[in-house]
Amino acid sequence: MKLIQAQAIAKGNVLAAARIAGILAAKKTGELIPLCHPLPLTHCEVNFEFPKKGDRIVITASAKIAAQTGIEMEALTAVSVAALTIYDMCKAVDKHIRITNVRLISKTKKSI
Amino acid sequence: MKLIQAQAIAKGNVLAAARIAGILAAKKTGELIPLCHPLPLTHCEVNFEFPKKGDRIVITASAKIAAQTGIEMEALTAVSVAALTIYDMCKAVDKHIRITNVRLISKTKKSI
Amino acid sequence: MKLIQAQAIAKGNVLAAARIAGILAAKKTGELIPLCHPLPLTHCEVNFEFPKKGDRIVITASAKIAAQTGIEMEALTAVSVAALTIYDMCKAVDKHIRITNVRLISKTKKSI
Amino acid sequence: MKLIQAQAIAKGNVLAAARIAGILAAKKTGELIPLCHPLPLTHCEVNFEFPKKGDRIVITASAKIAAQTGIEMEALTAVSVAALTIYDMCKAVDKHIRITNVRLISKTKKSI
Amino acid sequence: MKLIQAQAIAKGNVLAAARIAGILAAKKTGELIPLCHPLPLTHCEVNFEFPKKGDRIVITASAKIAAQTGIEMEALTAVSVAALTIYDMCKAVDKHIRITNVRLISKTKKSI
Amino acid sequence: MKLIQAQAIAKGNVLAAARIAGILAAKKTGELIPLCHPLPLTHCEVNFEFPKKGDRIVITASAKIAAQTGIEMEALTAVSVAALTIYDMCKAVDKHIRITNVRLISKTKKSI
Repeated sequence: MKLIQAQAIAKGNVLAAARIAGILAAKKTGELIPLCHPLPLTHCEVNFEFPKKGDRIVITASAKIAAQTGIEMEALTAVSVAALTIYDMCKAVDKHIRITNVRLISKTKKSI
Repeated sequence: MKLIQAQAIAKGNVLAAARIAGILAAKKTGELIPLCHPLPLTHCEVNFEFPKKGDRIVITASAKIAAQTGIEMEALTAVSVAALTIYDMCKAVDKHIRITNVRLISKTKKSI
Repeated sequence: MKLIQAQAIAKGNVLAAARIAGILAAKKTGELIPLCHPLPLTHCEVNFEFPKKGDRIVITASAKIAAQTGIEMEALTAVSVAALTIYDMCKAVDKHIRITNVRLISKTKKSI
Repeated sequence: MKLIQAQAIAKGNVLAAARIAGILAAKKTGELIPLCHPLPLTHCEVNFEFPKKGDRIVITASAKIAAQTGIEMEALTAVSVAALTIYDMCKAVDKHIRITNVRLISKTKKSI
Repeated sequence: MKLIQAQAIAKGNVLAAARIAGILAAKKTGELIPLCHPLPLTHCEVNFEFPKKGDRIVITASAKIAAQTGIEMEALTAVSVAALTIYDMCKAVDKHIRITNVRLISKTKKSI
Repeated sequence: MKLIQAQAIAKGNVLAAARIAGILAAKKTGELIPLCHPLPLTHCEVNFEFPKKGDRIVITASAKIAAQTGIEMEALTAVSVAALTIYDMCKAVDKHIRITNVRLISKTKKSI
């Protein structure tokens, strides 16, 4: 199970790097997505789960802001870049590893 | 079909914006992915296909570089940000639209 | 008429790219202009007109913000980068093409 | 003469800031102009002249690179951002000051 | 005294460049420091003093913001990058020059 | 011992974040330091040591490049931003914690 091996070998670093990369990317959303407003995030979190099936890492990001605008793009950007970071750091361990599903797991908005 | 509607209404702009966003993001790969080398891309292309099934846009990106390093991360970053841009520009048209599959369609390397 | 030729060949792409580049640049104004405050733009628009005389593209940008500070720098940056993008994309079509007048056409401020 | 007044009051700072801003912007050309290659500049210089007529500052930028690609875009970007910086720093001194001509004065390429 | 020589030779430029670099870096704090909020600075200032002892430049930065969050990170980032800029611009004059103490001289917060 | 407490509580995260922040900052050196060439780093490493005295973290960064130019600025930038990140992440644990010595520990160049 390649992702698990990667986890055994370098889990802390890989996930920590992916988390930081995701958070930094969330702050760059307005710079990456042309028509996205630049938003002053007040909170961004990236988390990882390893489902029993063992062949994937589920990445979830949540972001908060004190504004009228939704910030799903910030969370989606965080997740995407976190996943790309994991891909990048694990591709040396196993040449056949590939990201098959960088997808939006869930989206929630809270009113303020 | 929501993506097709979006296509009818604003296709040129949406896809053009996604293409530009993807290309610009490819050039930022080293800035987004912590352990990715900063690479002087010589070519980056982002293309879109609308399969008959009609419920999705297939985004493909190709990147070239005159170096020993692979640049799949650049292409993957271009695809991811292009998809996020489409999501962002179409989410106003249809609240229920969501990205279900930002995934790697294919990866090719050419020796130089 | 070189700009018109460029328009015939690749207008959509050139202007779309210039528009996106201008909007993204507006969001980077505080990063480019040393003493400019970083401002959370709420709106930025870049438009193009082709005057009858036919030898130029008139680029206009408008920007809005909910703050006390003026944002003419954001609009000016958007126009400048949009013009540079057009220059860049058309210089391959005609080696003699050159930007003769990247200038401020008009500036308006609205109170909020 | 407003620019001269500005020069008398804050010349060193204004021109120094504009020079630095121009040089930094040249290094960001690939990030600002969508289809511009990211180029490793080996030299960039921004200079200012005050013609006798006294109502303008002539900004010239030169850039060098050890590559096959031209880098006029880098020089043009440097000039544009230097001019925007001067505009930004002088607009407080005189509300009526405006940039009328951010234009390409000259373009030269040297083979290596 | 190497720093004094540098001062004699190129003081204006070195300090002006360091000031601009520091101010621009303060605006990038949220982009550099992973868990730092992106903050809309309303004021940032970088100053230099030459103590009698003559072997160092004391760099101080102050930053202001209209928000509940402290912005010492912005001021610290400004000071650090200003110091790195001085180092970079003076290292050609004297190969043995080195930064021995990039440190926080003082930190003050004001309530709003 | 405040830094040790921080280490006990959140060491992995703090140091991992500081390492990533330092590496990403090294890649931005040319963007932060005005007259620094943009250099394609081939390697950057940030390490931390806890000397017996126990009141400090020694941060060392090394960078490599296949070019004629020295890259001490990249290593210095990595160290500075890594230190700022540690400061930022630990300042909530202990209000009195402060960075007293962000300094260059050692500098080595290797010919290629």
